[in-house]
Amino acid sequence: MTETFTASRAPEVIAALRPQFGGRLLVSRAAREQHGSGESWLPAAPPDAVVMVRSSDEVAQVLATCNAHRVPVIPFGAGSSIEGQIHAINGGISLDLSGMDRILAIDAADMDCRVECGVTRQRLNEELRATGLFFPVDLGAHATLGGMAATRASGTTTVRHGSMRDLVMGLTVVLPDGRIVKTGSRARKSASGYDLTHLFVGSEGTLGVITELTLRLQGQPALRQSLLASFPDLESATETVVAALQTGLALNRIELADALQMTAINRYSHAGLPETPTLWVELAGNEVSVPHDLSLFEQLAQGAGAIRVQRAETAEAANRLWRIRHDALYAARALRPGIKGISTDVCVPVSRLPDCIGRIQREIAATGLKAPLIGHVGDGNFHLVLLFDPADAGETAAARRINGVLVELALSMGGTATGEHGVGLGKKAYMAAEHGPALDLMRAIKRAVDPENIMNPGKIFDL
Amino acid sequence: MTETFTASRAPEVIAALRPQFGGRLLVSRAAREQHGSGESWLPAAPPDAVVMVRSSDEVAQVLATCNAHRVPVIPFGAGSSIEGQIHAINGGISLDLSGMDRILAIDAADMDCRVECGVTRQRLNEELRATGLFFPVDLGAHATLGGMAATRASGTTTVRHGSMRDLVMGLTVVLPDGRIVKTGSRARKSASGYDLTHLFVGSEGTLGVITELTLRLQGQPALRQSLLASFPDLESATETVVAALQTGLALNRIELADALQMTAINRYSHAGLPETPTLWVELAGNEVSVPHDLSLFEQLAQGAGAIRVQRAETAEAANRLWRIRHDALYAARALRPGIKGISTDVCVPVSRLPDCIGRIQREIAATGLKAPLIGHVGDGNFHLVLLFDPADAGETAAARRINGVLVELALSMGGTATGEHGVGLGKKAYMAAEHGPALDLMRAIKRAVDPENIMNPGKIFDL
Repeated sequence: MTETFTASRAPEVIAALRPQFGGRLLVSRAAREQHGSGESWLPAAPPDAVVMVRSSDEVAQVLATCNAHRVPVIPFGAGSSIEGQIHAINGGISLDLSGMDRILAIDAADMDCRVECGVTRQRLNEELRATGLFFPVDLGAHATLGGMAATRASGTTTVRHGSMRDLVMGLTVVLPDGRIVKTGSRARKSASGYDLTHLFVGSEGTLGVITELTLRLQGQPALRQSLLASFPDLESATETVVAALQTGLALNRIELADALQMTAINRYSHAGLPETPTLWVELAGNEVSVPHDLSLFEQLAQGAGAIRVQRAETAEAANRLWRIRHDALYAARALRPGIKGISTDVCVPVSRLPDCIGRIQREIAATGLKAPLIGHVGDGNFHLVLLFDPADAGETAAARRINGVLVELALSMGGTATGEHGVGLGKKAYMAAEHGPALDLMRAIKRAVDPENIMNPGKIFDL
Repeated sequence: MTETFTASRAPEVIAALRPQFGGRLLVSRAAREQHGSGESWLPAAPPDAVVMVRSSDEVAQVLATCNAHRVPVIPFGAGSSIEGQIHAINGGISLDLSGMDRILAIDAADMDCRVECGVTRQRLNEELRATGLFFPVDLGAHATLGGMAATRASGTTTVRHGSMRDLVMGLTVVLPDGRIVKTGSRARKSASGYDLTHLFVGSEGTLGVITELTLRLQGQPALRQSLLASFPDLESATETVVAALQTGLALNRIELADALQMTAINRYSHAGLPETPTLWVELAGNEVSVPHDLSLFEQLAQGAGAIRVQRAETAEAANRLWRIRHDALYAARALRPGIKGISTDVCVPVSRLPDCIGRIQREIAATGLKAPLIGHVGDGNFHLVLLFDPADAGETAAARRINGVLVELALSMGGTATGEHGVGLGKKAYMAAEHGPALDLMRAIKRAVDPENIMNPGKIFDL
């Protein structure tokens, strides 16, 4: 077991695969660079080649070949990961799975479906429209379902419907040596053996390649109601969220922005909203439960000191409200045109949010950086977009330091370094602090499943 | 790696542990037999000794000693497992964790708690009463939370709140060599590294010893409403369940009994109910949502052809209704006094229930055995209590054959051999059929985590 890869072995693999894959084996600079950067702020790391696969059997063939030559394989879906998950830091083959995009089965009675890994969530939801069902994990990126499972993705509706962790019922996985295994079943629960499904969900391509997924679907609610609530401070906003969660209100989404983010939104979207901590809320249910929950939410918000609570009276108003939320990242970046920024991603127990956010904001203020905040507050997960100029060494160092200070703070509160973006390269340095001796157990599992260390080596942890 | 254990090494371990544990190290026949049988129909297999531990450090000490001597360790909670999970089939040490029963923290704002593994779910819920919160996994047995996590337990409220799989946020686990690791966090979601929590949940003590758990709690609903609905056949009952799930009714519980089980209940509980397939339903919510959902459920049931729908008009009536459900197992056994029976446990996609149940009932009819059915129908999980005389070789063989035929049938429908009882010894024979090549992956993980194979060896699978 080693982490040094012999770059010269990639040509042997390329030569071995070319007869079968022909034009689906790409070595052009453009293809390699496109497959080696994603949406990450990290510098690109292109693979030696890209192979466009169409089936689990083809994946098995590529993996068996790479395993025999000890050449790294990096699974690639839509390239939307942001912590460097697809960076080929040791060279090797980028396995492009976007062509595996068949929807294999939809069962409306049992509310589940089976898809290939390259299907995007948008495409699945288009196919589901006629059934009255939908797949709820709703994130910003135009991601593939295989990639979402591999990074344990979540999003705005996780407070209600859960994340990929909760909605993947079973997987087809190709192991590093080319064996194809199936995990889980279509049963809604099982006590049968080790939970391999959850082992692969969130493993970021380091244990094998997810090629098919069985997913749980949800029924469309009869009614939704959106509202926007402005608060004098983070404490009163968080207090409202905690009370709403305890009361069991049917929160479909509950999202938080801080005062700076609201300023950014007003500038970008001409929204004219109070520039104070704000909650976006969507309640879901039926014609009696939604008005009830709405009224109760308004009472809770006003009891906590809300400045303004504004219902979306029409579907158009609701769409506009969520459009503004959706554009928050662009609004944040527009505070410093030309600057992309890096997004933090800690997740803490919900009641700790004001303390966590307040403390890191004081740290940020001392650096002079701007960092608007947007968060999935019902889960305790929030993102600060740290706007820094990568050409400015001082700003870069400050932004990276803040990212680390925030992780330490979150861990001290019982939280986690990453709520939904995953570890990749960007959060690797914090894994020992978060997991302690459990990190060695992860390494032991990695060695057992991938003894040649070909699967996305150097991600999550070093061996 | 071997599966043959040298029985003579147990005395060395006993001698090594006696100085520290003194009277908490038991070798009496009574203690050994009590720790080697549980609620299983399998013949008892007592350990060589029982050690009553009080802390993770003591667990670590016992495990390190046993690991050095390659002596098996079998974790023991309340002894309520029913598939032979606690049977010491290779001798060794039964690690009695019932003394680790401290509730370490309850956080009402964040709706979570941390407990030692020996705390029972009843005890936790008593402690939680004043907070308005509860821990929802509701099973028949008086089980410990550590044991429930180890077997991935579920119960009547899983349709609403999930199983142990969904409600364990993090664990403290002692590994076979005595290392103590912590998994997960108090964050409601995380994308940080391999999901070790889910690896240990359901591993039945074969990978390590769960000593502490962080659990998600739920708020008590403002209102509950129970009802009983009688149907002409299983198809119409199941059709009602599928429609209720798709409509998103707030089903807190939905349980099914077949006609024979209803006959048993009428005899045992003098209930005077129609002796046809019957649903117990509990709706939960608030003063507007519950009447709405109740009315909708009644419409769905009547639309599917229900014979009778009976609301529980008072709390006493609801209690009586659920008491009858709770006593169903005793009622079933009373059909053949003195006979304990074995309980099947398959779980299938909900819509496949009528076909699955109908086909196995025809097989059972051909044997002449009686096997009343009770099920967690919202999850697709049901139990047939196969009543057979263990002294009658023909009946015994027929009952065991039916158990196997049912598993094959469930697997052919995309289901699982066990919804909630776990594998232990009783379901081990079906693991290859259910998991195929994935079973070898489980074995590889077992070897990596427990190289000396001391942790509950011979359970779930053989190496």
